[in-house]
Amino acid sequence: MKTVVVGGGSWGTAFARLLADRGHDVTLACRDPEQARAIAEEQRNPRYLPNVSLHGIPGTTIEEAPLEAAELAVLAVPSRAFGGVVRSLRGRCPVLSLTKGLDPESGNRLSTLVRGRPVAVLSGPNMAEEVADGLPSAAVIASEDAGLGRELQEAINSLIFRVYVNSDLVGVELCAAAKNVIGLAAGGVDGLGLGDNAKAALITRGLVEMARLGEACGGRPETFSGLAGMGDLVVTCWSRHGRNRHAGELIARGASPERAAAEIGQVVEGLTTAPVLRDLSHRLGIELPITEGVCRILGGDDLSDLVGSLMGRRPTAE
Amino acid sequence: MKTVVVGGGSWGTAFARLLADRGHDVTLACRDPEQARAIAEEQRNPRYLPNVSLHGIPGTTIEEAPLEAAELAVLAVPSRAFGGVVRSLRGRCPVLSLTKGLDPESGNRLSTLVRGRPVAVLSGPNMAEEVADGLPSAAVIASEDAGLGRELQEAINSLIFRVYVNSDLVGVELCAAAKNVIGLAAGGVDGLGLGDNAKAALITRGLVEMARLGEACGGRPETFSGLAGMGDLVVTCWSRHGRNRHAGELIARGASPERAAAEIGQVVEGLTTAPVLRDLSHRLGIELPITEGVCRILGGDDLSDLVGSLMGRRPTAE
Repeated sequence: MKTVVVGGGSWGTAFARLLADRGHDVTLACRDPEQARAIAEEQRNPRYLPNVSLHGIPGTTIEEAPLEAAELAVLAVPSRAFGGVVRSLRGRCPVLSLTKGLDPESGNRLSTLVRGRPVAVLSGPNMAEEVADGLPSAAVIASEDAGLGRELQEAINSLIFRVYVNSDLVGVELCAAAKNVIGLAAGGVDGLGLGDNAKAALITRGLVEMARLGEACGGRPETFSGLAGMGDLVVTCWSRHGRNRHAGELIARGASPERAAAEIGQVVEGLTTAPVLRDLSHRLGIELPITEGVCRILGGDDLSDLVGSLMGRRPTAE
Repeated sequence: MKTVVVGGGSWGTAFARLLADRGHDVTLACRDPEQARAIAEEQRNPRYLPNVSLHGIPGTTIEEAPLEAAELAVLAVPSRAFGGVVRSLRGRCPVLSLTKGLDPESGNRLSTLVRGRPVAVLSGPNMAEEVADGLPSAAVIASEDAGLGRELQEAINSLIFRVYVNSDLVGVELCAAAKNVIGLAAGGVDGLGLGDNAKAALITRGLVEMARLGEACGGRPETFSGLAGMGDLVVTCWSRHGRNRHAGELIARGASPERAAAEIGQVVEGLTTAPVLRDLSHRLGIELPITEGVCRILGGDDLSDLVGSLMGRRPTAE
């Protein structure tokens, strides 16, 4: 399958490698011309996952990518850039989104920004570093076009990357967006040194919050217990590779959100998504207490006050 | 509340401290007279959590514990010993079980072994080491006696140990038993170096398996998404304190189950529970593929063959 992967971050890079190893004809297109040139010259991505060989995967810009001839465009760009990139795509091939977030301008799911083409999303516990190392992973592909979902499953599934189809596009996209915000909060627990018990309790309530949001938007509860929900949430909150977790840890130790993002040096989607989700929850009339708390901390509130007020609430039924 | 905590392992020790700090009159009763004497003399438990002061908490044997005068007996003994200990209890006070497992002889839930007294169970993501260090935790108390549940919630809840009541005794007990078996499997993933993505996928399918078992036994699905289910599962599978996870890691690296248990030096409940759960699933006619896999590995099968066969299955819907 002739594929253009758009986005030269760590996940775009690892996914391009995964597709090429599965026998597909893959081009890696970057928004940054400098990065495109470096990949084309060095046959690796000097900025992200520099140890992964991109031999056989040409690097180029979006403008020069062979999109008219492509059978699939994979988008692995930050949520902030997704709308602009999708509007700039030439050709008519289907889009597979790897981006985990919402459109910051409208609060809409990213797949709704794709017009006039079939669209699917891929999500799950897929830390790019491990996928690039050839370690086994599992993911879901969700699409309203069941034929596209099965076709992509067939094209991508392998012994080291198991792909399940899921028809709940809404649920999968909301899980992917919301888990990063819970990841920031989990990092806060780490940064304060509150321990694994506290983090597990937070994650448990975080999944309840994610499912509440998802159901209010029309997602299915099972999705939140699946790979894109619980699966991705636990790896986001516990893996040493988790950027959102790491950012939360740095912020809890006193860094500003900007400083934390700069130190991590990659996009920290939860920082963008938290206020978008909060606004969405207000429009929907539902409560997302962890997301509200994250937004207050990002706005400068004191984290230890927040923890104290959570633990001091009246004891209730679960 | 006059309380006897029976069981001088790490959780019994930490819980005795927690209750005493909450103002209760606590005695710590050990099955082993040597350990009882050591605790009485040293005012700490030299074997488990030796840094935790047990000042004000007398150590004694079960035979000499003030059970007739007690208002609550807390049982924190291995599942293998639970039936014998409960039959040996004098007095008529309610029992709160902290033990996570099933009765190995009958396959029954442990609370069903308590006859002629009110019974409740406490479960959740509560690594003893962290509770002993005063780090915040949350737990659920489940009982068919709603009054007892609320009374214990009131007696135990504090700013650092939040207690929720849950009326689903069946679900809470099955979660507590099954999560240790999934913890062994998660340790196997660690031991083979398969990475966090694979572990997250395993945990996700593990929770599905736990919920299937729980529903077949009459438990409620929400319980499996709550603190006793997902919450305890993730801390069991990810915390460095997780004994079952650690045992699975050692076994995956070539240790026998006996050797792994000896190296850990504390009870590894998953080793006892795995075959009990497998037999239960056969009687119920439900499939528990991870538990079956754990039983095969404990029986001497090769772990890498099992992983290969799982990843090589036909791709399906989630």
